Amino acid sequence: MPEIILSINAGSSSVRISVYKTPEDHSSVPAQLAEATVEGLTAPPATLQYECGDEKIKGKELEAVKSQEDGFRYILDHLTNDKGLPELNQKEDIRFTCHRVVHGGDYPRSQVIDKETYHHIEELSDLAPLHNAPALSIVHSVANNLPHAKNIAYFDSAFHNTLPDYIRTYPIDREVAKKNKLRKYGFHGISYSFIVHAVSAYLKKPADQLNIIALHLGSGASACCIKGGKSLDTSMGLTPLAGLPGATRSGSIDPSLMFHFTHSAGKPSRSSSEKMHITQAEEILNQNSGWKSLTGTTDFGKISSSDREEDKLAFNVFVDRILNYVAPYFTKLNGEVDALVFAGGIGERGDKLRKAVVQGVKCLGFAIDDTKNSTQVENVVTDISTNNAKYKTLVVQTDEQMEMARGVLVDKDGFVGKK
Amino acid sequence: MPEIILSINAGSSSVRISVYKTPEDHSSVPAQLAEATVEGLTAPPATLQYECGDEKIKGKELEAVKSQEDGFRYILDHLTNDKGLPELNQKEDIRFTCHRVVHGGDYPRSQVIDKETYHHIEELSDLAPLHNAPALSIVHSVANNLPHAKNIAYFDSAFHNTLPDYIRTYPIDREVAKKNKLRKYGFHGISYSFIVHAVSAYLKKPADQLNIIALHLGSGASACCIKGGKSLDTSMGLTPLAGLPGATRSGSIDPSLMFHFTHSAGKPSRSSSEKMHITQAEEILNQNSGWKSLTGTTDFGKISSSDREEDKLAFNVFVDRILNYVAPYFTKLNGEVDALVFAGGIGERGDKLRKAVVQGVKCLGFAIDDTKNSTQVENVVTDISTNNAKYKTLVVQTDEQMEMARGVLVDKDGFVGKK
Repeated sequence: MPEIILSINAGSSSVRISVYKTPEDHSSVPAQLAEATVEGLTAPPATLQYECGDEKIKGKELEAVKSQEDGFRYILDHLTNDKGLPELNQKEDIRFTCHRVVHGGDYPRSQVIDKETYHHIEELSDLAPLHNAPALSIVHSVANNLPHAKNIAYFDSAFHNTLPDYIRTYPIDREVAKKNKLRKYGFHGISYSFIVHAVSAYLKKPADQLNIIALHLGSGASACCIKGGKSLDTSMGLTPLAGLPGATRSGSIDPSLMFHFTHSAGKPSRSSSEKMHITQAEEILNQNSGWKSLTGTTDFGKISSSDREEDKLAFNVFVDRILNYVAPYFTKLNGEVDALVFAGGIGERGDKLRKAVVQGVKCLGFAIDDTKNSTQVENVVTDISTNNAKYKTLVVQTDEQMEMARGVLVDKDGFVGKK
Repeated sequence: MPEIILSINAGSSSVRISVYKTPEDHSSVPAQLAEATVEGLTAPPATLQYECGDEKIKGKELEAVKSQEDGFRYILDHLTNDKGLPELNQKEDIRFTCHRVVHGGDYPRSQVIDKETYHHIEELSDLAPLHNAPALSIVHSVANNLPHAKNIAYFDSAFHNTLPDYIRTYPIDREVAKKNKLRKYGFHGISYSFIVHAVSAYLKKPADQLNIIALHLGSGASACCIKGGKSLDTSMGLTPLAGLPGATRSGSIDPSLMFHFTHSAGKPSRSSSEKMHITQAEEILNQNSGWKSLTGTTDFGKISSSDREEDKLAFNVFVDRILNYVAPYFTKLNGEVDALVFAGGIGERGDKLRKAVVQGVKCLGFAIDDTKNSTQVENVVTDISTNNAKYKTLVVQTDEQMEMARGVLVDKDGFVGKK
């Protein structure tokens, strides 16, 4: 009998839930039944987006929904009451809930969340409090509302567990590094895992033989060098701040810079509380920097199509920083590259950005077809290379919710006996 | 009549002075007459190294020399009393003194030091107090002892004045960046300038047509992408901390890391004084990190030839971080590269490191000859490429003292009327 899986992605102002059922045949792909998102929790009124079969709800205002937990309960009621979703009539039908957790420390794979793992994830979150806090708070609500379901944490860092020592090590005091768990972790791993599966299916090549230069470009952006289906290097570090700039994130800068930016860099931020230890520096670099600080907007689509000097500057900064990763990943793969992959909101929709990036590595053998590049992508994987390009350039519509649900099928047996 | 030029390089524990005379023919190269170094100022007794013609002094102990100023005066007396150096019989023979200053802010070129420029350099030094302080203190001694000579500052940052806006800009708050002068500056520029001149002469190609991927690798290490003889990109940033790791320097790390390393990251360091504002974080990252923190030694030669796990790790970390710059600089030059250049102490002597780096970019068309690579370099420029390599790999014995003296010949006319 098919079982119901919820994939839950909680941000600070939104809760998104995708509903899947396990496949009845022996395929390894769960079937998506519905998707519900409550947005605008920090800018009320919150609104509902919903899609199930032919049914669509867009922007229904929810006056009473004020918190993540409210949002989760609202969606849960909505799902169980939807006659168009007969597979999910009562809360007890839900067998697995998947949670995207950004920082998983040394966890090499997903974890069933029990008291012990919850506590450990909480401790880890000291490394990335801005990023883990929303997931941790929804885990609580879910456990209270769905006591019979298995809560499973999927970590954005787990895919990068294969980073070699010389890449994960920072050249800093060994004892402090060990004690405080300071090393490169890397993130966006659920997306990179999806990309490996999608490209493997598209190229009909086993995942463990795939070499990919992957770019996940959204309001948070990173690059990953994938060798034999595994992460060899990635641009993010101890936290998601390192590497590429993002909508409000500086990316890598001189590590001295913050001490010349504000003399109170090391003090607790105004928004930090007892449960969330972040410094003013971390808040400034994560939330008040990036292309918003250069242009005034977080909308990279607007920036790409503008002629204002500051927009052109932000565009060129982003292209330049991306190119700083594509070329070394090419050499780390010894030039044996199956595809350069663009994913994430900007990766999928930013044709001008893709063109500029590929132009920047033309001398390595990449080239894209302008017509293919400017056509809106519809499939999971779209080839936008010219016919005679030495290497393929692909656009992948990444789907982290699906990747977590797929993970449940793979992991199910491993969960037996836990909790 | 030839004029005497002193090139002065003052570190925190040493003063090195090279003596040149302006050429009598119309060549553009000053002739070196002597070189004197006082070392060990922070680990007394200080010692003198001296070379002039056939005369050599090695490690003469100087009990009375306790400070940079002592060291400078000692060398000055030694030079004027040396019968083997008839060109310099009295202090008044010295016409120009060149000072290597690390951080020159927006100065696009060398500056005659008068009250106004001294004050401006002092202000700039807030950005890099650890690095500018030794030069500033010797400038004072020289001005007092040689009131008739022109003091000229040569900046390590000036060569990078050509960095385009999209490379020099950090994606951070525009107003703070402008007010606090926060941008990428880059350093080792006197060395990169020497490399351009040396490679131009060696390849018989005009400097303004040269494309070079240059690596200055010493206890401080950086990379530079040189296009048409000018700096297009470089690895160091606002300060010399960014980019590659060094003997005691972390290089680029997650900008959040320090706030997870020590909670007092932003506090003044114990060694900071009224004249030197540095934080604990900057001191830790500049002086207690790098390969010393991984291995216990600052001697990269020892690390390279060791089989200990921690030495191998440090070696591999350094190679990896260097490769992160070589490949993108290759693509920024569109694959039109005249030479990959190794310079600096490790660049000149580290044959094992050179081999590993070139191996890492083999797929781009670089290859070195093992015999040429393992032979100690004697010339200013040595080609270590295989005969059939697509691109040249060169070792350059960089000479910052000579480059400053050469600058005097070029700049002399521009100095007329100043001071």
